[in-house]
Amino acid sequence: MEKIKVFAPATVANVTCGFDVLGFAVNAPGDIIELQKADHNEVRILSITGDNGRLPKDAEKNTASVVIKAFLEAIGSKQGIDIHLEKQMPLGSGMGSSAASSAAAAFAINKLMGEPMSMKEALPFAMEGERIACGAAHADNVAPALLGGFVLIRSYDPLDVIKIKTPEHLYSTIVHPHIEVNTKDARNILRGQVPLDKAVKQWGNVGGLIAGLLQSDYEMISNSMEDTIIEPIRSILIPGYDVAKAAALKNNALGFGISGSGPSMFTLSQNEKTAKKIGESMRDAYKQLGIGSDVYTSKVNDEGPIILYSE
Amino acid sequence: MEKIKVFAPATVANVTCGFDVLGFAVNAPGDIIELQKADHNEVRILSITGDNGRLPKDAEKNTASVVIKAFLEAIGSKQGIDIHLEKQMPLGSGMGSSAASSAAAAFAINKLMGEPMSMKEALPFAMEGERIACGAAHADNVAPALLGGFVLIRSYDPLDVIKIKTPEHLYSTIVHPHIEVNTKDARNILRGQVPLDKAVKQWGNVGGLIAGLLQSDYEMISNSMEDTIIEPIRSILIPGYDVAKAAALKNNALGFGISGSGPSMFTLSQNEKTAKKIGESMRDAYKQLGIGSDVYTSKVNDEGPIILYSE
Repeated sequence: MEKIKVFAPATVANVTCGFDVLGFAVNAPGDIIELQKADHNEVRILSITGDNGRLPKDAEKNTASVVIKAFLEAIGSKQGIDIHLEKQMPLGSGMGSSAASSAAAAFAINKLMGEPMSMKEALPFAMEGERIACGAAHADNVAPALLGGFVLIRSYDPLDVIKIKTPEHLYSTIVHPHIEVNTKDARNILRGQVPLDKAVKQWGNVGGLIAGLLQSDYEMISNSMEDTIIEPIRSILIPGYDVAKAAALKNNALGFGISGSGPSMFTLSQNEKTAKKIGESMRDAYKQLGIGSDVYTSKVNDEGPIILYSE
Repeated sequence: MEKIKVFAPATVANVTCGFDVLGFAVNAPGDIIELQKADHNEVRILSITGDNGRLPKDAEKNTASVVIKAFLEAIGSKQGIDIHLEKQMPLGSGMGSSAASSAAAAFAINKLMGEPMSMKEALPFAMEGERIACGAAHADNVAPALLGGFVLIRSYDPLDVIKIKTPEHLYSTIVHPHIEVNTKDARNILRGQVPLDKAVKQWGNVGGLIAGLLQSDYEMISNSMEDTIIEPIRSILIPGYDVAKAAALKNNALGFGISGSGPSMFTLSQNEKTAKKIGESMRDAYKQLGIGSDVYTSKVNDEGPIILYSE
């Protein structure tokens, strides 16, 4: 293989009660990366589109190139690579934009080099992209972006990620209101200590959510999608949060929560028609507040990245 | 049916990371209750054995009779009942002694009265026994005692208990050292606030434990049986805790934790031979400390109470 073009999915991290431990991938939006073996022995970024010039083209600083360099070094290869990156989702929106690029890069370079690693083995290299983009090698976006479906990050030391089988009829609707939330603010606003009784409620819900997903029990999923600790604090940073949530739940969303650290919000539902109706209701809710928004509706992505083209 | 004799299992609550939300039942020890329809229209306790005279025979104060009275009132029956209770497990040991009596009573009276309720419907009546015995209607012992297997208490308001399918080859070993722990001390010693990062670790482990149980993944179960919040504090109240834990883990226990609020401790393992060896190693560890102990080894009970005799 000389050339490969790959799509990798956007992701929702901090799935309600599963703050910092549970994320899932969606079929839209996502990023596209194209890699080509080159005669030189460097990793070079030739073009980036869709980022309004905000992403670095310096191979030491861009998530995609950092992932590819780390991967090549690990397999002892000096192969030169030319990269074209097409950002197809907004940056800083809470939908795992950097993770999509990191996962796309890890998946694509692994395929291009003859698949020396499993996706779980490639995950730590994709996490290096998150380190460059966010300052810490979080896995809660990049693991579902790479593995697909719902992924539980049980532990970082040692790294233990558990893919949770996705129920067949699970749809996601994401609304991205056109407002900015600083991720650092979103992290700093959280309290270092939480009440034990609320923590107990949270881990009961995490248990219920995992059981509901594994058993395709939509009522159990819905009952468990409750966040007693993070949502009450972070939702304050997102104008219109309560209005959007009310609109989604009124239209039969199984649950509603902040996507990542916002400002995007997500819902899950049981069929495409409901998912689309929820999307319209959230868009209308924001329109009435005078805030524009984008809505993304898709099935939960269970496959991770896909090859669009190779030769 | 005029008469019924029932066995109900001991239980382990606070299963490591699943503090206050996860419990399971064992095949031994347990309590035996015998109910007989009577000519009078009262609920009477005729005999209690195995309690060294510590349990009340007053029908308003005994767990079993309180459960039966609440059940009969709910179905609008004035049936008189004579009760014989055989305690076959130590009181205040952390193995759900009162829950075993409550579950036995709820199961037996339901059968005796022609099974007007499902076990989930009967659960709130069994919880009334816990309210009399412990001052609060906890479900984390009595739900697994009544339903069998692992049970997740996701929520109390509304009550939502989720039975988690038990892996086929899961054995439990419980050691009960002959020391006393005051349950009130065990509750009071806990801090009202916990660090967010430890809480996140805990709910990641709860997710992993539920996924491991539902998928019969013993390695995942083992990795997830970690308690970063309660164990470090409560284990201080139990002399020999670290020695017993080390002995169990050295002998291939999947995990080790405090049973309920102690002083009993439990382990899980993958076969009977290992479970017995773990039991011997923990008994030896306590013997070397000059402390006597009882060891109980059995399969995890997946059925809940069983009828021993009826006519």
